[in-house]
Amino acid sequence: MIIFSRNTRQVVVYALGVSEINVSNFGFSSGRLLQLFRDGQPHTKAEMAEITGLARSTISLRLDPLIELGLIAPATSATSTGGRPSARLLLNEESYVVAGVDFGATHAVASLADLSGKILVSIETKRQISDGPEVCLRWMIEEIRHLLAGLKIDEDRLLAIGIGVPGPVEHESGKPANPPIMPGWDGFDIPARVNQDLKAKVLVDNDVNVMAVGERHLTYPDVDHLIFLKAATGIGSGIISDGRLQRGFQGTAGDIGHVRVSRGDNIACRCGNYGCLEAVAGSPAVIKNVNDAGLPVRNMSDLVDATKRSKVEAIQAVRQAGRDIGEVLSTCVSLMNPSIIVIGGSMASAGEHLIAGVREAVYSRSMPLASESLSIVQSKAGKEVGIIGASVMAIEYVLDAETIDQLVAK
Amino acid sequence: MIIFSRNTRQVVVYALGVSEINVSNFGFSSGRLLQLFRDGQPHTKAEMAEITGLARSTISLRLDPLIELGLIAPATSATSTGGRPSARLLLNEESYVVAGVDFGATHAVASLADLSGKILVSIETKRQISDGPEVCLRWMIEEIRHLLAGLKIDEDRLLAIGIGVPGPVEHESGKPANPPIMPGWDGFDIPARVNQDLKAKVLVDNDVNVMAVGERHLTYPDVDHLIFLKAATGIGSGIISDGRLQRGFQGTAGDIGHVRVSRGDNIACRCGNYGCLEAVAGSPAVIKNVNDAGLPVRNMSDLVDATKRSKVEAIQAVRQAGRDIGEVLSTCVSLMNPSIIVIGGSMASAGEHLIAGVREAVYSRSMPLASESLSIVQSKAGKEVGIIGASVMAIEYVLDAETIDQLVAK
Repeated sequence: MIIFSRNTRQVVVYALGVSEINVSNFGFSSGRLLQLFRDGQPHTKAEMAEITGLARSTISLRLDPLIELGLIAPATSATSTGGRPSARLLLNEESYVVAGVDFGATHAVASLADLSGKILVSIETKRQISDGPEVCLRWMIEEIRHLLAGLKIDEDRLLAIGIGVPGPVEHESGKPANPPIMPGWDGFDIPARVNQDLKAKVLVDNDVNVMAVGERHLTYPDVDHLIFLKAATGIGSGIISDGRLQRGFQGTAGDIGHVRVSRGDNIACRCGNYGCLEAVAGSPAVIKNVNDAGLPVRNMSDLVDATKRSKVEAIQAVRQAGRDIGEVLSTCVSLMNPSIIVIGGSMASAGEHLIAGVREAVYSRSMPLASESLSIVQSKAGKEVGIIGASVMAIEYVLDAETIDQLVAK
Repeated sequence: MIIFSRNTRQVVVYALGVSEINVSNFGFSSGRLLQLFRDGQPHTKAEMAEITGLARSTISLRLDPLIELGLIAPATSATSTGGRPSARLLLNEESYVVAGVDFGATHAVASLADLSGKILVSIETKRQISDGPEVCLRWMIEEIRHLLAGLKIDEDRLLAIGIGVPGPVEHESGKPANPPIMPGWDGFDIPARVNQDLKAKVLVDNDVNVMAVGERHLTYPDVDHLIFLKAATGIGSGIISDGRLQRGFQGTAGDIGHVRVSRGDNIACRCGNYGCLEAVAGSPAVIKNVNDAGLPVRNMSDLVDATKRSKVEAIQAVRQAGRDIGEVLSTCVSLMNPSIIVIGGSMASAGEHLIAGVREAVYSRSMPLASESLSIVQSKAGKEVGIIGASVMAIEYVLDAETIDQLVAK
């Protein structure tokens, strides 16, 4: 595996032994040569020969299948800045597509993107994740086919499908693992079911991990240490450290909804424990607190309205939820030393009041060095962050040297 | 930068764009070809030609400088398993050395290791880190020279020096950053001072990060998600995630000594805050608690003795410290999803009582999925863990393709 780090000096790998050499990753296979094109710049075969030390004829042998597949193509005069146009080759980002799918508790969005991550088309619907995998995935498969047909794109050109779901997932197998709000999905083999109808590679991850990837891609492409926190009915986080999404040993990294907070001693959580962050500061708890304080609000949208109308009961409850979230995030800051914490999810729509509470708790509890260059900001990515993150996850798979070499071998 | 992952399927990098191509890391420079030898197996030029697609003559051109430098050498008949012995080449781990140095609050160890990480010689002394950088580093430089002379190794063969210090360090510059127990070291340019006398590359890191690297190298080489916790006067952790040491944005990742714990509301910490883990569960607090309970103990060694003699005051205090540490670690488990937590440092010598408290708190507070395959164990690495971690850090630098290419260019 080749990592292109923006800051190679920071990357040190501690593994004295090396277990195997993979030719896709080490040698100059077609897939590895394709990596040279991922800077978006035109390159010539002469340049490739110089970088690699390979003969021009060998370079042609490796590049020809990529040209045949349409993955690289001669730079057009518009993009070329000199030289014989046909000698300059570019990554053709429109040659293939991926699908990005975002399943929420009560909604679902399916989309298609090109290899640059640009969303070409998307469709959203109200859909209960609790309808179970068969119903939800059948909807997804049909929508992807509709979207492909609408753009007159052959199913063969769909190479991968990235899917975010609202629960923990074993990323390697694509199976949800004990997801609390996804009845029927526990251990369900999502890739196997999808592959009954669509041949594309299927990658599944937790929705918050997917949002972290999307937010970074859209707003903070140069930030290598970022925590994305989603505050809604549930509370969770996605951690990017050293430029890489951290999934942990079983894929549960970032699941901070059930960390105990000091204010929560008597508050029972649906997980069976007491004082979990989610039970104390999730949107149902905040809505209940506002009602208890005498201001009737039915849902998140009422609550956001009330904060915008400067209702003190709403502002106080949201700010307190921010402090509770900040209490947990302050430990995350000590542990991971991020440079940015991004707050998203429906509760973030309550704006500065939530962030103010988070900042208050984080800055009062963190060590000076860890907090001096830390920004805590509201998500700027908007509703598309989920499908964009899912698309980016799919594209990373597609452009990987090993995937390309498999495609060439077919 | 090339990463050899034991489990490539787990490694996904989310960076669609690539900013630069580094020939040391992408092309087949001498340094990159050396990577093929890091599996410890003999390789032939014919094999290299096949893997790389380069002509045999080009392979020779790249390997000859490595042979000249002594970094690779013909496999001896003892290691060869067939073929013409001279055709089989091996990484020569004895060709160069690195120094591994471990500065504690009141001790210092200097050592030399070969490129396999084997410690060749070491020397320990009582030394106050508070004596300041000039005194400490002069001692270190003299000891390294003594050790080299004792083994009749020329100073030119010392390629790097890894140093662990008991405080936060900006790893890229090698400067301690506000270290609380290292007066005179704040912002001190350790590499520049050392390089006045020794030419070798100097790498500096926090002692707990270094211990995490050492523990993994010695005991858990195949574990990719490990947290090493040091419990002594101070409390800190080193985090290995996805096989990589996590340093965070400014190098403070893992500094959990000042996370607030629930039991500590009225306990002031030297940092100016209240209820920090270190103030509640560091060894001075535990020793005070045992004395307050009526059992006189002067220091850590008295305390460890008392637990071994089953004194209930000592056992209770140590177990409670374990619970406090476990409270913070339970958040680390939710956040990082490690498969192993290793407890080291002088308080770990109190044995199972500390670990029992840690386990009690972590398992009662963590979600089932995150804790079902989590082991919490005592460090097995022993006192050498610091110098071994520092040596491994130095060797990783030395064997990096870019370093080798610089060496070849000289």
